[in-house]
Formats: sequence, C-alpha cells, structure tokens
Amino acid sequence: MTQRFSFALHATDGKARTGMISTPRGEIRTPAFMPVGTAATVKAMMPESVRATGADILLGNTYHLMLRPTAERIDRLGGLHKFMNWDRPILTDSGGFQVMSLADLRKLTEEGVTFRSHVDGSRHMLTPERSMEIQKLLGSDIVMCFDECPALPAPRERIAESMRLSMRWAARSREAFGDRPGHALFGIQQGGDIEDLRGESAEKLRGIGFDGYAVGGLAVGEGQEIMFKVLDYAPGMLPEDKPRYLMGVGKPDDILGAVKRGIDMFDCVLPSRSGRTGQAFTRRGVVNIKNARHADDPRPLDESCSCPACSQYSRAYLHHVFRSQEIISSMLLTWHNLHYYQVLMQGIRDAIAAGRFDAFEAEFHAARAMGDIEPL
Amino acid sequence: MTQRFSFALHATDGKARTGMISTPRGEIRTPAFMPVGTAATVKAMMPESVRATGADILLGNTYHLMLRPTAERIDRLGGLHKFMNWDRPILTDSGGFQVMSLADLRKLTEEGVTFRSHVDGSRHMLTPERSMEIQKLLGSDIVMCFDECPALPAPRERIAESMRLSMRWAARSREAFGDRPGHALFGIQQGGDIEDLRGESAEKLRGIGFDGYAVGGLAVGEGQEIMFKVLDYAPGMLPEDKPRYLMGVGKPDDILGAVKRGIDMFDCVLPSRSGRTGQAFTRRGVVNIKNARHADDPRPLDESCSCPACSQYSRAYLHHVFRSQEIISSMLLTWHNLHYYQVLMQGIRDAIAAGRFDAFEAEFHAARAMGDIEPL
Ligand SMILES: [Zn+2]
Ligand SMILES: [Zn+2]
Repeated sequence: MTQRFSFALHATDGKARTGMISTPRGEIRTPAFMPVGTAATVKAMMPESVRATGADILLGNTYHLMLRPTAERIDRLGGLHKFMNWDRPILTDSGGFQVMSLADLRKLTEEGVTFRSHVDGSRHMLTPERSMEIQKLLGSDIVMCFDECPALPAPRERIAESMRLSMRWAARSREAFGDRPGHALFGIQQGGDIEDLRGESAEKLRGIGFDGYAVGGLAVGEGQEIMFKVLDYAPGMLPEDKPRYLMGVGKPDDILGAVKRGIDMFDCVLPSRSGRTGQAFTRRGVVNIKNARHADDPRPLDESCSCPACSQYSRAYLHHVFRSQEIISSMLLTWHNLHYYQVLMQGIRDAIAAGRFDAFEAEFHAARAMGDIEPL
Repeated sequence: MTQRFSFALHATDGKARTGMISTPRGEIRTPAFMPVGTAATVKAMMPESVRATGADILLGNTYHLMLRPTAERIDRLGGLHKFMNWDRPILTDSGGFQVMSLADLRKLTEEGVTFRSHVDGSRHMLTPERSMEIQKLLGSDIVMCFDECPALPAPRERIAESMRLSMRWAARSREAFGDRPGHALFGIQQGGDIEDLRGESAEKLRGIGFDGYAVGGLAVGEGQEIMFKVLDYAPGMLPEDKPRYLMGVGKPDDILGAVKRGIDMFDCVLPSRSGRTGQAFTRRGVVNIKNARHADDPRPLDESCSCPACSQYSRAYLHHVFRSQEIISSMLLTWHNLHYYQVLMQGIRDAIAAGRFDAFEAEFHAARAMGDIEPL
C-alpha cells in the first residue's frame, strides 16, 4: 500500500476514463461512487455492509460533524475512521455548500460564513482556515477547499463574484492545508453555467495546484440538460492527470452522462435516501415498493441483483415491511440501492477498459426503456 | 435432524432444568430466549444477525400477521419462514393476548373474540379454530392454544371464569390442531395468582395432552414478587417431561428467577424495544446511552461483550448516533441486547449442566450490584 496520494489513468474511451486513486488507506477504483455518511454513518447500513456493496470510499459532511459530535471530539476519540468503524478512505466536503443550504441566520463575508446551528441554535463561523482545521481533525483523506456557490439559474454577476470569492478561498485553503503527505486537497471549480467563468476558475485553480479537482456548483437546480452542457467543456479545463469529482451527483443516468464527459468521482444521497422512502433502483428503472402491485409478488426486486434484498426476499416482503414502517425496510432497500450503484460503477469501469462505453450506455438506456417487469 | 418434535432433559439443578427441544427445523437449547419478530422482522435486525447472537427460535405474532400482510398471503408466499428469511423454528402466539391489548371494539363470547384492526379498522373474529388455522397457514413450528386472561390484580371470580373459558378453548384448539407430525401445540395454564385455580387449569391441560405447556397470565402487571410466588408452584403442576414456557418474560433477573423455578422458555420484546430507546443491558446493569456522561467515552459499552456494538464502537459513538436519531443506533443496540440475552441463556444452561446455578445467580446479582463502570 502506498504512503502517498496518487492517481493513475488506466484507460480512456472517448472522454471517459478509468483508473485508480491510491492512498495510504486503500485504493479507489474510478469512476467511483462515494456513499454519503453524513453524521458518521451511512444511514441504515453497517460499514461492513457498505464495503460489501463495493464502495472504496465514503463521504463525510463537515457541517454536520462540526456541530455534532464536533470535530474536536472526533479527534479526541481517534478520528472519524475509528469513530465510525470505516478504515478505508474518507472524503470530507468543506461545509461551505451545506452551511448555505441548512444553517440559520447565515452571514457571508470575505472572511467566511457565520451561522447558527440547525441542531441547537449555537453560533459558529466557517472560514477556509477553520474548514481545513476541521477536516484535519476528522482525519479526512481527501479534503475539499472551502467554497460557496449560488443556485442556478443566477445572474452572471452573482456567479462571477461568488466564483472569485471561492477562488480566493481556494488559495487560503491551500495555504492552510499545508503539506500533509498521504492526504489530498481538492480544488473546486465554480462558474455556474458560464463557460468563460468556468475557464477563469480552472485557470486560478491550476495556478494554485491541487491533488484533484471538483466540478462544483452543479446539481443545484439547473437540470440535466444544462448540467451536461457545462460538462461538455468544464472537465476538459482541469488537469488530465488528476481525478475529477462531480459533487452531489446523482441519478444513474446523470452519472453515465458525466463519466462520458470525463468525470471520475461522484457522491450522492440518492441511493440511501431513496432506500428509506421505498424507491429502488433497478436495471429496468425505479421501482416504488409501496405500490400495491407488489403485495403478492413472490419475485425478487431485481433477479439479476445479488444483494441480500434481492437474493433473500420477495417484493411482497419488501412491500410488507415498507408498509409496516419496519427498520429492515430501510436496511434492505438502502443495501440494494448502494449495491446497484456500485455494480453500475463496475460496469462503467469494465466498459471503459474494454473500449465499449457507448455500447454499455446504449444497453443501460435500453434496459431502462423496458420499464419494470410485468405484474403477475 | 429429527422429523418429530421432542424434548429431552439433560440436567437439573434444584428445579432449574437444561435440555433440548428437537424439531425438523432445528434444535432449541433450553432454557431458551426467543426474540420477538412481531411483523415478520425482529426490529432493526437482519435474521442472520439474530441467529449470530445465538437465537435458536423466534416468536411471531398471530395478531399482527393476520392483519398485515395476512396469514393467507404469507401462506401463498410459501410460509412465514421463507417470507422473513428465517429457516429455524418459529413459535407463534395465538393472538388471544394481543387482541385484548391492542385491538379496538373487542367483544368476547364463548365462541371467541370479535374486534376491529388497529391498522385499518377492518372487522375480524378470532376463535380457537381460526387461531389454529392462521398459525398453520403461517407454518408455525410451535403453535399456542387460543386463550384469554385478565390483568392482575383481578377478583377470583374473574380469574376463574376466564381460566375455565381458556380451558374450553384449549380443548377446541387441540381438536382443531389435529395431528401434525413435526409441529407442536402448547397448552397455556391460567389461574392468575391463585394456587388452586392454577392447579385446576393444569389438571385440565394434562387431561387434554399437549407437546408443551406455557405458564400464561403472568407479566400482566403483578410485579416480580407475585410472579415468583406463582412460579414457586405453577411449573411443578405441569408435566416434567415437556417444555415449560413463561410467556412475555422478561427482564434478565425475571428470567433467572423463573429458570430457578423450573421454566425452560421465554420471549420478550424488552431487548429489542430497549435497543431502540437507548437502553443497553450489560452485566453491570442497564446503561442509558443517551446520558451525556458517554459523549466523550472511548470505552466499549461492555468490554466483556463480543457483539459488533461493543467490539467495534465506543460509547461515544453509540451516544452520538442515538442523539442524532440514526438508524444504526437501533441496529447496534438491538444487536447488543439480543446478544446479551443469548449469552445470559448460555451462561444459565452451562451453570445448570455444571450444577452451579446458585453460584451463577449470585455472580449475576453481584455484578449488577456494582453498577456501571465509573465515568472517566
Ligand atoms: Zn438487490
Ligand atoms: Zn455488546
């Protein structure tokens, strides 16, 4: 196992790339999907089960963890990996995005953001320096720059101002992060849906220099069409020899379209959140398990899936426990959805390596177009 | 594996007994604790995890399952074992107790009980014959007679009338159950806290003849002192060569006191329900994980426990996820509590086999008297 953070590209197919990120805590196969472990747990999952789905890395949320149980407490307890019983890589976000969407009484200045906790109303400040400190206390393997971005659509001036502030914060983040062998700092490209602003942001980030680069400021309400339009040019502005991470994305077809445009890493709450609301991802689209059509159906959710929900239970059972509001419903459907996402990523990686990504994408869409299996 | 239901006593120590129930679906070591799987799931647990705690048998609730998803549906889907992915023995209660405590608009007659579902308001009737039919549809390995009992304290006349009705229902249950090799029917002794009524009930049941006998009508509000007083004589009225089951009990010290008085089987929601409310059973008593004293405590809940909650997490983590209302809190604490109960049962069985049950009981109470470990 390496003692340094590094990225190796193994194959490309068009703009799609497959490779490997190496870290002292293990390897991350790319394109990679990172399940979200907001409050030091991937909701309804034991960490060994998350690993069993094929996840190489988790995402932790700085905003949630700084408020509860606090970064200082996690540090005293030996760091986030030990705390949550996950010894493989963890990427933490900077808290910037979540503080703007979740906290109360936010006030944004050049220095940073002051806000009140949504948990207990306590006052806090997040700055690039404090975000770096928190992510270090957590023991994060991949640290994200502190940034800020508007929801889309937004006027050019708002997008430009926000991007330039984020670029000044990126320089402060780099400075505060310092030199930490084995740990990586990722810069975050901003600029909304405006090409020249994306270019200006990428230029600034390349000038500072990072171990990886995120495409930020997407999946904020703009829709898939605009997102793909931005992804047609934005990833290519970033260094080819570093991993590219599309934050907060997304639906399976979002991921496929983003990989096709050169993205290597993803995170999203969708598979776990959908698991808790009875939505299951399958090759043939999304199945709503609470629908009465499943009540007597002895067939598995997805006969091609090897997860516990599919190999050990019927749709009828999954329907019953969802309707009965049993915890095992969230456990099984979350497991299935995370498994589905990881199988999708493995399929993507294999297809790129075999130079058949376009065929894989066509098969993916053809299976979904069939819709769910016929009712009995 | 046997094709018949049988019980063998291996050792006794005073009135305490240890032995083995053999069924076509596997062996049940006694004294046995049966986790409760009310709605076809032991809440917050995968069935393989329940088995990993050492459980040989689960309890299912006729009342809940008949209402949702219905016994007929479970039958069509291949029975309760397949439905819930538990291939070992299942005992089902008769529905009699729960219908009287949970259903609306109950009406009790010689024939049975009519009531409205607490789930959807639909009308139902439970009779001895219908209860036997439902438990057969579920595929239950150990079927309980349909019975009825008052909460204690109650006047003698109420207890006597109720007991005699239950004995007539026991005869009807036996008749309706018929001859089902490999499946067992248990009679339920009633008579409240009145010795001669317990004797009359036992006499009736022995006359009918059952594969096992429950002591019913306890743990209904009478307190441990009265319960133990009844258990000083009630189990001895039942056949020595059949298993004796104390329904709905109980706390660890209830179980110890009941084993000492000749009981072989137990069921209770306490370990699973307590797990969901942050109460953890340990050798040194009950730990309330939500207490702020645990927030910074890096030590395991119980250092002598080998369950995942204790071997992989700190009290600080368990405190954090409980306070954050994360599902993993219920998962880990339920696992721990069920593990605690099964380790207790194994300790009881070993102590009886070694002829040192009294010493085991003394050690149990001595450890609890120490109270929880000192705060750091
Ligand atoms: Zn599955
Ligand atoms: Zn434990």
